[in-house]
Amino acid sequence: MYKEAIMTLRVSFGFLRVPLLVTAMLFAVAMTALAEDVWNIGPRTLPAAVDVSDVMRESLLKTPTPDVAAAKALVLRTDEEWEAWVKEGDLPRAAAALALAEALSVTIQEDVIGGVNVYRVTPSETDEKHLKHLFVYIHGGAWVLNGGVAGTLEPVLIAARLKMSVLSIDYRMPPKHPAPAAIDDVVAVWQELLKEHSPASMAMGGTSGGGNITMGSVHRFRELKLAFPGALYMGTPCVDIDKIGDSRFINEGIDRLLVSWDGVPQDAGRMYAGKFDHKHPYVSPIYGDFEGFPPSYLISGTRDILLSDTVRAHRKLRQAGVEADLHVYEGQSHGDYIAMWNAPESAEHYAELNAFLLKHLPSPLTPAPTPPAGTSTDIEVPKSAFY
Amino acid sequence: MYKEAIMTLRVSFGFLRVPLLVTAMLFAVAMTALAEDVWNIGPRTLPAAVDVSDVMRESLLKTPTPDVAAAKALVLRTDEEWEAWVKEGDLPRAAAALALAEALSVTIQEDVIGGVNVYRVTPSETDEKHLKHLFVYIHGGAWVLNGGVAGTLEPVLIAARLKMSVLSIDYRMPPKHPAPAAIDDVVAVWQELLKEHSPASMAMGGTSGGGNITMGSVHRFRELKLAFPGALYMGTPCVDIDKIGDSRFINEGIDRLLVSWDGVPQDAGRMYAGKFDHKHPYVSPIYGDFEGFPPSYLISGTRDILLSDTVRAHRKLRQAGVEADLHVYEGQSHGDYIAMWNAPESAEHYAELNAFLLKHLPSPLTPAPTPPAGTSTDIEVPKSAFY
Repeated sequence: MYKEAIMTLRVSFGFLRVPLLVTAMLFAVAMTALAEDVWNIGPRTLPAAVDVSDVMRESLLKTPTPDVAAAKALVLRTDEEWEAWVKEGDLPRAAAALALAEALSVTIQEDVIGGVNVYRVTPSETDEKHLKHLFVYIHGGAWVLNGGVAGTLEPVLIAARLKMSVLSIDYRMPPKHPAPAAIDDVVAVWQELLKEHSPASMAMGGTSGGGNITMGSVHRFRELKLAFPGALYMGTPCVDIDKIGDSRFINEGIDRLLVSWDGVPQDAGRMYAGKFDHKHPYVSPIYGDFEGFPPSYLISGTRDILLSDTVRAHRKLRQAGVEADLHVYEGQSHGDYIAMWNAPESAEHYAELNAFLLKHLPSPLTPAPTPPAGTSTDIEVPKSAFY
Repeated sequence: MYKEAIMTLRVSFGFLRVPLLVTAMLFAVAMTALAEDVWNIGPRTLPAAVDVSDVMRESLLKTPTPDVAAAKALVLRTDEEWEAWVKEGDLPRAAAALALAEALSVTIQEDVIGGVNVYRVTPSETDEKHLKHLFVYIHGGAWVLNGGVAGTLEPVLIAARLKMSVLSIDYRMPPKHPAPAAIDDVVAVWQELLKEHSPASMAMGGTSGGGNITMGSVHRFRELKLAFPGALYMGTPCVDIDKIGDSRFINEGIDRLLVSWDGVPQDAGRMYAGKFDHKHPYVSPIYGDFEGFPPSYLISGTRDILLSDTVRAHRKLRQAGVEADLHVYEGQSHGDYIAMWNAPESAEHYAELNAFLLKHLPSPLTPAPTPPAGTSTDIEVPKSAFY
């Protein structure tokens, strides 16, 4: 195509005998046009992923080809339309969060910290190693969804799987509250938490839009000279408000959850960005400075619309010398590890996340338990043992 | 499609009034057929990747849409056709390896170890930290290409970028020598190397087919009770001879280097497997046991046909508790870090690989250099300094 275009140029301009300067200018314009050229990729078939668990494979076999046209057709025009759509979608998600909490013996309590609504999500039993840790969770949902209890779905999973206390921030959202409202809320909560917890003992993170706000918040912490968390979790984060990144094109109609970037995700992102330049690190955190970021855990999947976002963040972190672990799962779409919470892949993901946090959050030495009552204490160790 | 199929079933069988058992049996058969169903993915456009270096972006802009039809049309029918095609392709690659060695001040020397041809690829200056290390390299090229000097292209890059000695194994290949000839050659060299080097001081690995043979060889080492290397490098490895894995479908016509799995890669893989079952760990190493594998470094790209292979290997390693680092680069096709050796992304990859090896290969404490001649040695440190 490139060669053809060059040849076309030669043919078109060759006989005109225009002055050299004009030719050069026209050529420059043509090159700019070429620079925006694209590959035209043909149709293909995609079988259900094979090297996945039975649960995941059966789920994929039952899922029809994602409907791109329907996804793109969902256009919400007014604040009222957005609010109605959000409200309708959040109801079943809130119900799912409560049902999951019940099933996994996790409690959810409302609270207010720094004037911001939060949920304290607590497992029935906390891992001894996590007793002094707190997971500060920032929910996802394209910056507009999952307000209220609906946002506690992944916190319930984290509390249950990691046996760790989670504090989920119910930040303000568009259409009423575009950026930087969400980040301001995270900052308000974080400043209060810093009064009672060491920053290094707290992890922070979330999935999708939650990963976006997590990174944006850390950029904001730097400006405010606030201490950083001990570790970050970015699950298939959106790092760029603009439609940039291979996977937003390659995995369109292949990601069964997001389906397409065009439509609600793109519109919600623009609404969230509000008056901010799309390259501002609050809204497109990939353009921020990652030096000194906490150790970071990232996850995506081979069908994920935001695979490129995830690997772009991973590289930026690595370029800044940050310890960052990337995990990409075969056959997974955006956030499948939440939707498919009962699949072995989901359990594996949270086991990885747990290992990562146990490695990077402080682990005070735990003395061996005192001997049980009745244990003889007069056993004499012969001195020869030290010869 | 799933729903439609079910409806079709209802319509087809509803009026037949066949006994319930027969209906159930037919339904089971139909479900099996459904279970092999695929998603039909429509055409799309893919712009040149944006969040890449200028060198990479310009290269992508100059590359026309990969030609799937041409890639699939290349069918080699006889041993003679294979040998002629390989010979023709290896000539420019050998020339490139020699030119690159010259440009990067790397020397290439032929040798024979354990009866196997090898190349000693040595940088002009070895990093002090790598003085006792050796990179045992297994070249790629779909199991058939890159015999002789042509296989030293990446070893030259490794030697130059990591300032480390490389020993590249010129293993026997199909059509004359299918599996396990290549692995046998690696074993023969490895057994000789173990007489003079500690296994932990040696890294082993390669790209593509080289990653495949690396993993297959380590499976073989286990059977032979040979010590494992200190670290492994699997660059966009093929882990499965069969066409399994999302990216072999998703990235067809998107990977500008491999273009398609169908055609030469698939045919060469089958020729390499020879009489081995395609699930045998020698030829499809993903089906082997990864417990106790050395720390492993893996790299792929968002356009790579073998992205799924790479992430499948990463997960298998992690499931076995092996320290394994996954790196996925935006915009990169199969092996772009070699083809685009002059791009910053390539330098970044080899810097990551170097950091990984320095972390996992033994690093004896290096005392500070002795003071330069003429330095006064009679400086007395006052005892109060220790109060």
